[in-house]
Amino acid sequence: MPLKFRLLYTSPDSCARIGLLETRRGRIHTPCFMPVGTHATVKALSPHELKEAGAEILLSNTYHLWLRPGEDVIQEAGGLHRFMSWDGPILTDSGGFQVFSLPKFRKITDKEIIFRSHIDGSVRVLTPEKAIALQEALGADIIMQLDHCPPIPAPYKELEQAVERTIAWWRRCLRAKTRSDQALFPIVQGGDQLSLRQYCAEQLLADDPPGIAIGGLSVGEPPEVRVQVLKELIPHLPEDKPRYLMGVGHPRDLILAIEQGVDMFDCVMPTRNARNSGLFTFRGKVRIRNAKYKRDFTPLDPDCSCYTCRYFTKAYLHHLFKCKEILGARLATIHNTYFLQQLMQKARKAIQEGTLVQLRQKILSLG
Amino acid sequence: MPLKFRLLYTSPDSCARIGLLETRRGRIHTPCFMPVGTHATVKALSPHELKEAGAEILLSNTYHLWLRPGEDVIQEAGGLHRFMSWDGPILTDSGGFQVFSLPKFRKITDKEIIFRSHIDGSVRVLTPEKAIALQEALGADIIMQLDHCPPIPAPYKELEQAVERTIAWWRRCLRAKTRSDQALFPIVQGGDQLSLRQYCAEQLLADDPPGIAIGGLSVGEPPEVRVQVLKELIPHLPEDKPRYLMGVGHPRDLILAIEQGVDMFDCVMPTRNARNSGLFTFRGKVRIRNAKYKRDFTPLDPDCSCYTCRYFTKAYLHHLFKCKEILGARLATIHNTYFLQQLMQKARKAIQEGTLVQLRQKILSLG
Repeated sequence: MPLKFRLLYTSPDSCARIGLLETRRGRIHTPCFMPVGTHATVKALSPHELKEAGAEILLSNTYHLWLRPGEDVIQEAGGLHRFMSWDGPILTDSGGFQVFSLPKFRKITDKEIIFRSHIDGSVRVLTPEKAIALQEALGADIIMQLDHCPPIPAPYKELEQAVERTIAWWRRCLRAKTRSDQALFPIVQGGDQLSLRQYCAEQLLADDPPGIAIGGLSVGEPPEVRVQVLKELIPHLPEDKPRYLMGVGHPRDLILAIEQGVDMFDCVMPTRNARNSGLFTFRGKVRIRNAKYKRDFTPLDPDCSCYTCRYFTKAYLHHLFKCKEILGARLATIHNTYFLQQLMQKARKAIQEGTLVQLRQKILSLG
Repeated sequence: MPLKFRLLYTSPDSCARIGLLETRRGRIHTPCFMPVGTHATVKALSPHELKEAGAEILLSNTYHLWLRPGEDVIQEAGGLHRFMSWDGPILTDSGGFQVFSLPKFRKITDKEIIFRSHIDGSVRVLTPEKAIALQEALGADIIMQLDHCPPIPAPYKELEQAVERTIAWWRRCLRAKTRSDQALFPIVQGGDQLSLRQYCAEQLLADDPPGIAIGGLSVGEPPEVRVQVLKELIPHLPEDKPRYLMGVGHPRDLILAIEQGVDMFDCVMPTRNARNSGLFTFRGKVRIRNAKYKRDFTPLDPDCSCYTCRYFTKAYLHHLFKCKEILGARLATIHNTYFLQQLMQKARKAIQEGTLVQLRQKILSLG
């Protein structure tokens, strides 16, 4: 078994739970947040800084690595872990989400997705089999099926077609899989339609996968819709499998989803916001380019123990951002990455101690 | 005495020497190379990485800090060391060199330099007194006089005027200085005219400064001219004062100047080159964007112990540069900074062991 999930505790007050994901490259405490390393690097961070920030697993994007440097280069390097010098667990997505969002030209049939690379315009074909072959070449610990991810809202017919396609592609992924050291997750689609979600989950779970992802959320829907889908869907998912909500990363959205019983998250937003000078703290958001920080000689958050808060002031960060210095993007990314890991730690503690409601109130009050 | 220079050894074969600069913030082994932290950050590096790379002192630019964030902000922060979290020695320049090169509008008289800020177009006035006030606010350990730095070649009259102005401004700087914990260096000008250089040095040295800088080189002249000026000038400088050659940083230029008896250097080139994918190694230059490195799974230099060479391959660096990832600029800058410090260490060892000629041959052979 490439992946073992131990459910450690379930809250008596909500669906929230704490668990432990065990891989041969290390353990991951859940609920967990996976920083995103699009091009085999979490933007602005070294792998050692990522570890120091508390990250236990990271996500990388198959689509981007396929196009640059090419999955064959990474395979020759000895796999993604060696290529980027990160020895902890890695999850790769299937490439599907980027194929749906980045290229200008794309044609989707039940058989395949044909698109033009957004880098050089070359024509590429992504199939469930190809998504598995790519991810086997990259060598992540957890890999994802190719799915069809429509927006919300979408007509029922479209959501239904996406579900059927996702189920069919899941089965093709399962058949295509050759490596036994990678855990393959299916992805539940179905938009905001519970009946579709439930049907999709049943079909996927029939194959007893090691975990299950919830896709097709964080695609433009209001937060209430997302919470409602989770509230209705998750009771239909088995307790003993980790649940991964794809693409969600705002603190308030994380805490609301944790309350519904989600175990795993990923999102580029915390690191992207950091590079754009948007910083999270447990005292509220800080837009560090704001002129009021020019002479603020206190740390971003005096209670924070990240490298940035231990050594630098808001005035210095403000200056670095005004001068567009690389160190500004770095220090901001270190802080936000650490903040997200701290948030997960606080959530795990709150679940254990029965204080998740208070933590939720606090996080929601930060805006 | 804010600065003490101990001459440890002088080569019997050349003018090369090793020494120790002692400041209250730490010791500096000479010959030394000072990385440049223009905006109170060596671009792409954290202060801790700078220390790990072996840097014992860094240089920061008064002109840039004056305009952004303002010397008053840095003074309020408790000085430049605290502002940027670097507890080692710092040298600041006077701002003069940037005023001569960056603004579109500038008017120079014996009294002052009037210019427009290249950031916001505001009119500013730089005088010797202002250069000292700015540097006292910043609080570096070694500070520089305001000088007049003409290009080479320049008409004799112009060089002569620059020398007279530099001598007059040195005296005004001396009178303006109020802090006793900073070492103020004068700057020898005179272009390629030995008589002017010698006269300038005599006048400046009459005040018994703690060290002396050689300016007006690395301003476009051929390397032979620079070496010739050093060869003729340095025998006229006292043995017991550190000699700082401003703005020189290419490995071959460093080794040639060390042979002539220079003790201190600074230059933005090694870090700027790194960000533009130009890497120095003791096996030759590496232009890491070159396609031939796409599948090169060896380190930049297997004999190098820098963070970059310990953990990453050329293929990974190549990939990061192709994707314009911040980590690429970081890892390249770490390597070049470490390389320069290693070069200085090798030079000190070679002087001691009488093998500087061989080291020079090797460095020149790298191109």
